[in-house]
Amino acid sequence: MNLSMIIYILGCLMEVEAGLMLLPAIVGWGYGEKSALAFLIVAAVEALIGFLIILKKPKDTSFYAKEGFVTTAFSWIILSAVGAIPFSVTGQIPSYVDAFFETVSGFTTTGASILVNVEVLDKCMLFWRSFSHWIGGMGVLVFMMAILPLAGAGGQKLYLMRAESPGPSVDKLSPKIQDTAIWLYGIYLALTVLCFILLLAGGMDWFTSICMSFGAAGTGGFSVLASGYASYSYYSKVVATVFMMLFGVNFNFYYLVITKRIKDALKMEEVRWYAAVYFFAVITILINLWHVGMLGHDALGIDAFFSVASVMTTTGYATADFNLWPTYSRIILVIIMFSGACAGSTGGGIKISRMIILIKSVNKELRRMIQPRAVRHVRLDNKKVEHATAMNTLAYLAVFVLIYVISLLIVATDGFDTTTTFTAIAATFNNIGPGLGMVGPVGNYSEFSVLSKLVLSFDMLAGRLEIYPLLFLIMPSTWRRA
Amino acid sequence: MNLSMIIYILGCLMEVEAGLMLLPAIVGWGYGEKSALAFLIVAAVEALIGFLIILKKPKDTSFYAKEGFVTTAFSWIILSAVGAIPFSVTGQIPSYVDAFFETVSGFTTTGASILVNVEVLDKCMLFWRSFSHWIGGMGVLVFMMAILPLAGAGGQKLYLMRAESPGPSVDKLSPKIQDTAIWLYGIYLALTVLCFILLLAGGMDWFTSICMSFGAAGTGGFSVLASGYASYSYYSKVVATVFMMLFGVNFNFYYLVITKRIKDALKMEEVRWYAAVYFFAVITILINLWHVGMLGHDALGIDAFFSVASVMTTTGYATADFNLWPTYSRIILVIIMFSGACAGSTGGGIKISRMIILIKSVNKELRRMIQPRAVRHVRLDNKKVEHATAMNTLAYLAVFVLIYVISLLIVATDGFDTTTTFTAIAATFNNIGPGLGMVGPVGNYSEFSVLSKLVLSFDMLAGRLEIYPLLFLIMPSTWRRA
Repeated sequence: MNLSMIIYILGCLMEVEAGLMLLPAIVGWGYGEKSALAFLIVAAVEALIGFLIILKKPKDTSFYAKEGFVTTAFSWIILSAVGAIPFSVTGQIPSYVDAFFETVSGFTTTGASILVNVEVLDKCMLFWRSFSHWIGGMGVLVFMMAILPLAGAGGQKLYLMRAESPGPSVDKLSPKIQDTAIWLYGIYLALTVLCFILLLAGGMDWFTSICMSFGAAGTGGFSVLASGYASYSYYSKVVATVFMMLFGVNFNFYYLVITKRIKDALKMEEVRWYAAVYFFAVITILINLWHVGMLGHDALGIDAFFSVASVMTTTGYATADFNLWPTYSRIILVIIMFSGACAGSTGGGIKISRMIILIKSVNKELRRMIQPRAVRHVRLDNKKVEHATAMNTLAYLAVFVLIYVISLLIVATDGFDTTTTFTAIAATFNNIGPGLGMVGPVGNYSEFSVLSKLVLSFDMLAGRLEIYPLLFLIMPSTWRRA
Repeated sequence: MNLSMIIYILGCLMEVEAGLMLLPAIVGWGYGEKSALAFLIVAAVEALIGFLIILKKPKDTSFYAKEGFVTTAFSWIILSAVGAIPFSVTGQIPSYVDAFFETVSGFTTTGASILVNVEVLDKCMLFWRSFSHWIGGMGVLVFMMAILPLAGAGGQKLYLMRAESPGPSVDKLSPKIQDTAIWLYGIYLALTVLCFILLLAGGMDWFTSICMSFGAAGTGGFSVLASGYASYSYYSKVVATVFMMLFGVNFNFYYLVITKRIKDALKMEEVRWYAAVYFFAVITILINLWHVGMLGHDALGIDAFFSVASVMTTTGYATADFNLWPTYSRIILVIIMFSGACAGSTGGGIKISRMIILIKSVNKELRRMIQPRAVRHVRLDNKKVEHATAMNTLAYLAVFVLIYVISLLIVATDGFDTTTTFTAIAATFNNIGPGLGMVGPVGNYSEFSVLSKLVLSFDMLAGRLEIYPLLFLIMPSTWRRA
């Protein structure tokens, strides 16, 4: 393990976070809020520490998968631990554990909150919460690679990209990692600005528009009103629905569109399935709501379109309290909590492409049981899925279930009802935010014990980073000398 | 697909079932019950049809995996469909769908009941319900292979054994399949008789003792009183707890003990984990119950020992309404519903050995991510687990989740609460019987719609036969000509 290289990258990361913190400081200064000073001070101290670290470039720049995972895990923990300080020192979120939970929830684009009423927070705090969604959505290390010419042979870029980017395999849009990172952030920024302009055009004020755009872009879900998205206009809800879905699409799709390979884009299996699952869920929920007479006031069913988009992309904004919906609709929502959005998007969950690979692997396995000697391959977008990727996807499901179960066991000791306990973990592990029961759209996470909040924070990080980085961080074998 | 061979074996099976039906007829005759006649008539008709089928031996005896799966699936469906007729024609369970559900529940050793009060049934009906547990526990095809010298080259025996016996791989106790079948049924019968004698010795009447022994042996769970196991003596509960656990042990263990390889037996990883999980669950539930003050009347915690054994071995007898237990205990129960008992036992669930292989495969996968070139193998009992077995186990988990989700979607349309819906499927798919909520230990399955009852019947069969036979039965590719 090349610790000096890991620490060096963490130093760079601290510089980046310090820079990012200037934005909420400026916002707070604009609104004349004293709490803005906290961002300045924390940023200054962080920048100084980071500077001292990067003074000395490590001689040994060797960097492999193990270093990639560990660096990524540490980066996100530092990001959240430092990012939580302004909430805590200003007393806006008095308990540091709560502030940490809230910040992890922000960066991991979960949107689960311990706040009973968000409206008591200063604007700069609200901005930081929402901005953290935007940073976390595409990934802070990807951002760093886009803007910094990192030292070394490039090995670290590949392994960092792999460890931070969601999905069963990483599509490099360009042979050079830095170009891929720039492409990704370029598309991301453009779509965010478009969302912002459309919201603004619909009469939303600029502060709300920007925060809500961050939330939709990162598929986060923190809002600036206690009522979530319910009180905004019909137009805003439509814009939000469309953009949540757009940010849940594999960014490869946009790259293909931009480079005029629209046919290839439309052929992407993952995107097709993503759309199919979305419409299947919306239509059956609409039928279910109509069946029980809950559609009266919302004939066009915007609540269903919005809620399914919000849950499936793991954003977590709410226009309706879907906790009150009938069982069938609630179960559809729980299922799409797990399926999640596309790989290579800002959305969370297990990811549609993993689901496709899982189903195809099962199918292949079934055929093998009957014809043991026939050679078959799992194919995605007409390309052969490497056996290692298929195996890894199956193992991912297993490790996902394992961590889920362990989390259940710990959080259950708090003694809340089964639905709350079960969906609190589903909603954090899949980076959604609201679950059902006490943690439903009108509820929050404040009542959980400190231990549960830490476990849920771990789950949020594990969900965003797709488990492996955190797992390697805590596995003793990682730290054993070879 | 060699259909004539499949039909021939189904003919043999019908002879076997007709023979088995004579037992409840004798019991009914002994109690002077008119309904006993139904068993005689159904048995006679079934024997005749079976006889007509086996008159002509098929010339082509080729028999492979596909035939094995399809035969097994058909066998169990016929077994249940015919076994349900006596309930239905006598009016003891008026609806045939209900009778079918109850019979599937019996043969699959689930123990889920649509009966509000079992005590209204005639003795011969109660006997048949419990006896079906015993037949299904070790497998009717295994039984057939033990008693009949089946025609053909032995291929069918191997594939039938594989398709019907639970676990990621089948341990042949003896090189000859028939000898293995005889060994298994020999051990099974001996343990059942021992359980019966011990219950009888504790003052239970002979009818109840025999029915309860069948239920414990097959890890079924049907009881002859509406109160389940609650009203029996402390001694009976201890005997039942011990025997439920004994029947959940991999029968290999007993074979090793009998052939004086006790050291090897004690080294069996699966059995060790089985015991470890059991005691972990019991102890933490005892702490949880004590913590909330629910242990007062049961200082030795027999309810916890009994309930955990009952759920983990997927038997489903209840002494206490664990639906009223605190969340932590309920969640522990839900988790062990899925882990289940050992492979090669009469218990259901995903099986402990699959869990071990899953965890070891994940661990191997993690190591491979860091050292791609290192060659590693998953080992169980110090033997290399074939790569195909590991892959198959991972695929099993995926297909398990898939069927679970589809079942959820259908059963959820009935509109019962989330906990009921979720655990009704968990309890049938894992062949346990009682779940939580409406289907808790004091509840039943009568309220579900016909569609849900059929889906749950499918789940029970899929759970008992470990999914693949039923899956191959409904896959179009099975029926396509090569």
